[in-house]
Amino acid sequence: MAQKPSIPKGTRDFSPAEMTNRNYIFDSIKSIFRLYGFQPIETPAMENLSTLMGKYGEEGDKLLFKILDSGDYLSDFDEEQRYLITDIINREKEIISKLKNYQNNTSLIRFFESTKDDLFNIAEKKLVINEIIKKSEDGTKWISTLKLNTLKNEVINTSRDTFDNLLKKKIDKFVGKDKGLRYDLTVPFARFVVQYRNDISFPFKRYQIQPVWRADRPQKGRYREFYQCDVDIVGSDSLLNEMELVQIVDQVFAKLKINTVVKINNRKILAGIAEVIGEKDRIVDITVAIDKLDKIGLDKVNEELIEKGISQAAVDKLQPILHLSGSVSDKLTQLESAIGLSEVGSKGIAEVRTLFAYLDTLQLTTEVELDLTLARGLNYYTGAIFEVKAKDVAMGSICGGGRYDDLTGIFGMPGVSGVGISFGADRIYDVLTQLQLFPSETVDSTKLMFVNFGAAEEAFCLPVLAAVRKAGINAEIFPDKSKMAKQMTWANNKKIPFVAIVGENEMLQGKINLKNMVTGDQQLVDPQELIKILSA
Amino acid sequence: MAQKPSIPKGTRDFSPAEMTNRNYIFDSIKSIFRLYGFQPIETPAMENLSTLMGKYGEEGDKLLFKILDSGDYLSDFDEEQRYLITDIINREKEIISKLKNYQNNTSLIRFFESTKDDLFNIAEKKLVINEIIKKSEDGTKWISTLKLNTLKNEVINTSRDTFDNLLKKKIDKFVGKDKGLRYDLTVPFARFVVQYRNDISFPFKRYQIQPVWRADRPQKGRYREFYQCDVDIVGSDSLLNEMELVQIVDQVFAKLKINTVVKINNRKILAGIAEVIGEKDRIVDITVAIDKLDKIGLDKVNEELIEKGISQAAVDKLQPILHLSGSVSDKLTQLESAIGLSEVGSKGIAEVRTLFAYLDTLQLTTEVELDLTLARGLNYYTGAIFEVKAKDVAMGSICGGGRYDDLTGIFGMPGVSGVGISFGADRIYDVLTQLQLFPSETVDSTKLMFVNFGAAEEAFCLPVLAAVRKAGINAEIFPDKSKMAKQMTWANNKKIPFVAIVGENEMLQGKINLKNMVTGDQQLVDPQELIKILSA
Repeated sequence: MAQKPSIPKGTRDFSPAEMTNRNYIFDSIKSIFRLYGFQPIETPAMENLSTLMGKYGEEGDKLLFKILDSGDYLSDFDEEQRYLITDIINREKEIISKLKNYQNNTSLIRFFESTKDDLFNIAEKKLVINEIIKKSEDGTKWISTLKLNTLKNEVINTSRDTFDNLLKKKIDKFVGKDKGLRYDLTVPFARFVVQYRNDISFPFKRYQIQPVWRADRPQKGRYREFYQCDVDIVGSDSLLNEMELVQIVDQVFAKLKINTVVKINNRKILAGIAEVIGEKDRIVDITVAIDKLDKIGLDKVNEELIEKGISQAAVDKLQPILHLSGSVSDKLTQLESAIGLSEVGSKGIAEVRTLFAYLDTLQLTTEVELDLTLARGLNYYTGAIFEVKAKDVAMGSICGGGRYDDLTGIFGMPGVSGVGISFGADRIYDVLTQLQLFPSETVDSTKLMFVNFGAAEEAFCLPVLAAVRKAGINAEIFPDKSKMAKQMTWANNKKIPFVAIVGENEMLQGKINLKNMVTGDQQLVDPQELIKILSA
Repeated sequence: MAQKPSIPKGTRDFSPAEMTNRNYIFDSIKSIFRLYGFQPIETPAMENLSTLMGKYGEEGDKLLFKILDSGDYLSDFDEEQRYLITDIINREKEIISKLKNYQNNTSLIRFFESTKDDLFNIAEKKLVINEIIKKSEDGTKWISTLKLNTLKNEVINTSRDTFDNLLKKKIDKFVGKDKGLRYDLTVPFARFVVQYRNDISFPFKRYQIQPVWRADRPQKGRYREFYQCDVDIVGSDSLLNEMELVQIVDQVFAKLKINTVVKINNRKILAGIAEVIGEKDRIVDITVAIDKLDKIGLDKVNEELIEKGISQAAVDKLQPILHLSGSVSDKLTQLESAIGLSEVGSKGIAEVRTLFAYLDTLQLTTEVELDLTLARGLNYYTGAIFEVKAKDVAMGSICGGGRYDDLTGIFGMPGVSGVGISFGADRIYDVLTQLQLFPSETVDSTKLMFVNFGAAEEAFCLPVLAAVRKAGINAEIFPDKSKMAKQMTWANNKKIPFVAIVGENEMLQGKINLKNMVTGDQQLVDPQELIKILSA
């Protein structure tokens, strides 16, 4: 027997039992999203690399899975040819990545001035490749001779002035062949919003539940393929949206029976703090340190701030803020006196006040608290920051998000404010497993199996089976005339709660012997009674 | 403004409206799958290349999208180093692909004998790379120094006898880094069945709805990413399964209101025909020609057969079979006399007879016909062959499948018979669009929008909105206090059927002015009446 096949590290198969549980989570979440007027979209698994690169920092770029149309095209060439082609591709990539940083026209012209030689160099090499491909047996596998010839003619017949632009287009087109698997749903969503801005009615409320891929080192609980479950509204500044997201969180976890606490902070308050203590430019360092308050304690946080070069005076000024206590309203009052003079800080306090006033009018199941140490995803959040934790299980956050003022700016459409949250399906799965909260029966399950004793019994059972299904009840007949024990084990493994046993006696009476697989009880029923019992 | 972002050719975004329609199709199909006791599974988007390669023929292999962990690792090395590494990777790939063809132990040993030099050559080169990497600034990016050192020690300390196996493992592990996007759901399903054979209760009834990827030339109606929607039962020979698949097809399309005809053939009959006319080994050529009967007519089919080297005598013998007519039963009787002497042919006739006898007991909405010219997917079907066409639209088949006796054999688990069908979601989408059969309202849609006139009105509306949602009705409030016309347009674009307009007058009366967006009618209602109308 050959070696057992396997799947790539960090990826997973989902069995029927796991799928049922996962669908329970996704269906619960989706039903609440829809209740609040959010609509689904889907984007392709692969995006152009130009869409993905540079959006997740240097580390993120390295975690992108890249896709080749056909990884084999290089093998059609000999070693020298292959080296030449690889080199050109790499240089083109470099140039195009540089080009991406020059969206402003003046800079672009200056950039072209400085790289003309590089570009010409590539053009020349392309002509060389052209010759290579002509000689190669099947050049079409990589790029057609015709296309290369067209390029060559264009290069020869074009004046130097327009050549740069032309080549840029060619390069774009060529490099556009490079694709990557999406790393998250946020960047594809921003791309979607910009691409279809003329068709979208803003504010745009969408949800998206799809897998994402990261070439992370696989380890426990960290996968290279996993689902994200995002809900966002873009094109609206209203704090009603923040309120509704908290409501959605509340209702989703109430539905899933998970006790939660929603922690709320506001990036503007963090900015205000940094400003007031005189370290406006150090907001990231400060909030990263504050973020550790729970874990390492006040003394260590202060140490870290000093180590990072925050002045002693600033750290001293920060102390009252780290000691805020009391109700949300108390905290906001103390904060007001601490950072009220900062314009941005004051704005942040007002936002939090409004949001909590909204929340006070609701009957929430979840706890909601103001947590100034919450600094999650600081790099693009500009207003509210959310994080949700399960109360009865030690686990990281199971949901989080915030407001961002310029997500679509990276694709050239500035000034579209949005706010959104993301549910962590894998962690929610783990919480539900640990707390044994998955329902034992779901709409997915089969309710009834008919035992198969052979042709005559089959002929009796099939019309009954059809009637059961017509009543909307998931049911099946064991397809083969196998041993009774095998069939019962099969039903058991599939967790089918009822089994219909029809032998000669039952057929004579026109009845079905219905066995409850949980209690072991058996009863003789006619088809109508059968349907009634199963519908209960 | 920067260039508008775009998506790779052959891929698609799905807007909320498209998603709603697609979900309508998938949900309809899934509900019927479940009604028949099929359960969902999911497999990862990326499979090991060793799982995918060689399963789809030479052409198919070329259409695989391959994935790199990080396409950039080569750029960490200088040109000479890069060339060396690329070369080794390519040679390892070659060797491993050769190894895949030697699953039998004796052949394997012989293979090792003949390639030992090659393997040692690679081992030596690996040691060279080891040195290169040590010197490189950040070797961890490609493969850790530690790992390479371990390999080196293993190579040095291992006797020649076990070295081959060790190296094979190393190569496997290394080449295992190469992944590809799944090309269909059939091969991953076969891999799944073999991988989990000890956990699965056979017969195993699963459905799977996931995207697949093919590096095909994008053109109208052909995408590089598209969903497949497969339902299969493996580990059962019973023809009850074939019957149930036809029932599933019937119920799915009845639910979607598409009139269909199900064409049924049997590969064993085709084999019998080839045998009887004395061209047993030419079954593929013969059926490919017969498959064209509808399109090119009898004369051309005969011409093609002769051209392909089928003897005139064989073509003559084939004629009565091409002229079968009458009812299914008539055709089978004629066929019996034509090919009844062939054992396999006779078995095929018996199977078809049993299946149609089953189908006769059912009240099907769809037409079912025996079509001996149906040769679909001949390469792995071994029994029943199905194809479904929509009757009111000119379109290729919208669903198809058949029985295969040895799908899991490719992964070393022979003798597991299965039968399955696949629904073509994109074509079904097109049929429903052309026939305007998509429902205008679905569970996904928002039913009611509250116009937002500002803080006071908002405070009045929010509790009503909460009550509406509590009744399970999808509803929302426009988040910003915008112009009335903008809000109404927004509701219109989102196809929201009801809008609640609450101004000062309404608030004074504690009522809601409910506007029906289809008829334009307005009525003043209290919250209870509102919920009653929306629930209707």
